[in-house]
Amino acid sequence: MENKTYVVGLDLGGTNSVFGIVDADGNVVASTSIRTKGQNDLDIYMDNAREALIPLIEKVGGIGNIKGMGIGAPNGNYYTGNIELAPNLPWKGIVPFAKRFSDMLGIPVVLTNDANAAAIGEMTYGVAKGMKNFIMLTLGTGVGSGIVINGELVYGCDGFAGELGHVIVDTSSDARVCGCGRKGCLETYCSATGVARTAREFLTKRSDATELRDIPLDEITSKDVSIAAEHGDQLARDVYKFTGELLGCSCANFTPFCSPEAYVFFGGLTKAGNLIMDPIKEAYDATVQNIFKGKAKMLVSQLDDAQAAVLGAAALAWKI
Amino acid sequence: MENKTYVVGLDLGGTNSVFGIVDADGNVVASTSIRTKGQNDLDIYMDNAREALIPLIEKVGGIGNIKGMGIGAPNGNYYTGNIELAPNLPWKGIVPFAKRFSDMLGIPVVLTNDANAAAIGEMTYGVAKGMKNFIMLTLGTGVGSGIVINGELVYGCDGFAGELGHVIVDTSSDARVCGCGRKGCLETYCSATGVARTAREFLTKRSDATELRDIPLDEITSKDVSIAAEHGDQLARDVYKFTGELLGCSCANFTPFCSPEAYVFFGGLTKAGNLIMDPIKEAYDATVQNIFKGKAKMLVSQLDDAQAAVLGAAALAWKI
Repeated sequence: MENKTYVVGLDLGGTNSVFGIVDADGNVVASTSIRTKGQNDLDIYMDNAREALIPLIEKVGGIGNIKGMGIGAPNGNYYTGNIELAPNLPWKGIVPFAKRFSDMLGIPVVLTNDANAAAIGEMTYGVAKGMKNFIMLTLGTGVGSGIVINGELVYGCDGFAGELGHVIVDTSSDARVCGCGRKGCLETYCSATGVARTAREFLTKRSDATELRDIPLDEITSKDVSIAAEHGDQLARDVYKFTGELLGCSCANFTPFCSPEAYVFFGGLTKAGNLIMDPIKEAYDATVQNIFKGKAKMLVSQLDDAQAAVLGAAALAWKI
Repeated sequence: MENKTYVVGLDLGGTNSVFGIVDADGNVVASTSIRTKGQNDLDIYMDNAREALIPLIEKVGGIGNIKGMGIGAPNGNYYTGNIELAPNLPWKGIVPFAKRFSDMLGIPVVLTNDANAAAIGEMTYGVAKGMKNFIMLTLGTGVGSGIVINGELVYGCDGFAGELGHVIVDTSSDARVCGCGRKGCLETYCSATGVARTAREFLTKRSDATELRDIPLDEITSKDVSIAAEHGDQLARDVYKFTGELLGCSCANFTPFCSPEAYVFFGGLTKAGNLIMDPIKEAYDATVQNIFKGKAKMLVSQLDDAQAAVLGAAALAWKI
């Protein structure tokens, strides 16, 4: 008799919500998704979620076979199970998201922020398998982080620890304004949005020829920069160099905190490969304090983008 | 029958080594000290330590009553029990310090760095009693730190985690040179040495009258600045304001890492009281990310300076 041998993972993104049924070996045996964007009415969203989920759960023999559910969500709080003041989600204020799913499905539900879920996924199934001390950096629209110390996720006194995207890395008066209301945060430079900003800045300051000049300045995205860089475009490559160097120096400043055995990078920007990873490594080695030199590995997540967050969320549910 | 009811604590400083016998309630029931400075021959130092310690141990009924020994030492490594490359100690290279004491006394000996020992002391007997997440900052000749997350000291992959004195807080080209060989480290500004440097910098840049001008520029110490500040000297007070503001901003940048419930400040600079604590608090509140505002307490250690490090080292031994 097969019993409680699956968990549900939910990767709640600003655009889509991806559900997966995951077995004990980390295989996503069934998955589906619903729209998040525009779903301003949480009750309707929950109805859609139920409709999408029930057939998946039936496929693995019904809810009796499901141990629990894990959710990775922006601004998700592990301690409370709430999503709190998430700027990129349609629901305002504090949403008791874990409780809603738990009430709906009648199973235990845990929730954490999306970068923490990615870190757990990496620790359970990815390049950080077996590691007790590492830092996960997710380089997407923003910069998220999940920090693992002594084998445990760091949540801090309030559940919000691990916000390295909002470490201020530029204290100069012309530092970039951040969505958090302050200036100079890491994510204003080292996210997809940051890469586009850097490209616009370089295009304004410099006069060299680059295919990026064919695109209206305010429409340039990190995807454009990435394509140009692949073509060998120097300005685009310099954007990645600048971004990688700042990331490497920032990591060198994180290391005195917890001396991790690895940094694991995840998300769109890592697609640039060596164009970004080489400057990260070089700047890190040049900047980190002597006693830490040569210790932390700089790794790129090998988990499938589409599944990593679901796997991470699901991994959380195994610990219920 | 009283058995194993005491531990030995050793606070190994660059000048003196202070030994204490501590009971389970955290009372230092006997203590003594020997000279560290100038003791270049480790064998002679160990002989001196034995001579000093044996009478203390006899006082509490002999070695049979001693559970173990804890040592707090600069550059002490918890994982190895070694002191590694300590610039302010007379012994070069890697010294198997815990093993030496363990062999000599026939009891288990653990060793950690001095700031970690202070953090353990604070958690066991001080203002951080009962806290699971806090950061201890020791503001002495340098800046040390001990970080507690989920109730445990953070040692990292190599035993050297918690080196916040060497987080680079000034990336400008004229940032101060640090003893670690890099530039702009927190301890070049927010240590006793840093305070003296700031005073000299202010005296050179400014022209206002101050009692500090009665002292030759290169002889000014943090003690002089502290005395002048107590007299109401404006320049001296501005030095503390500058130091406190930089500390507050730096703490605001540590918080996204682990969202501590408190920062505990310890060491000479805290003697300036509100002159330094007010700017710390104000700069922290003004700089920290919104979601963390109002959460971390800014506390000054209430442990007796002379005993805190011994108590911390001793507290470590209870966990053997």
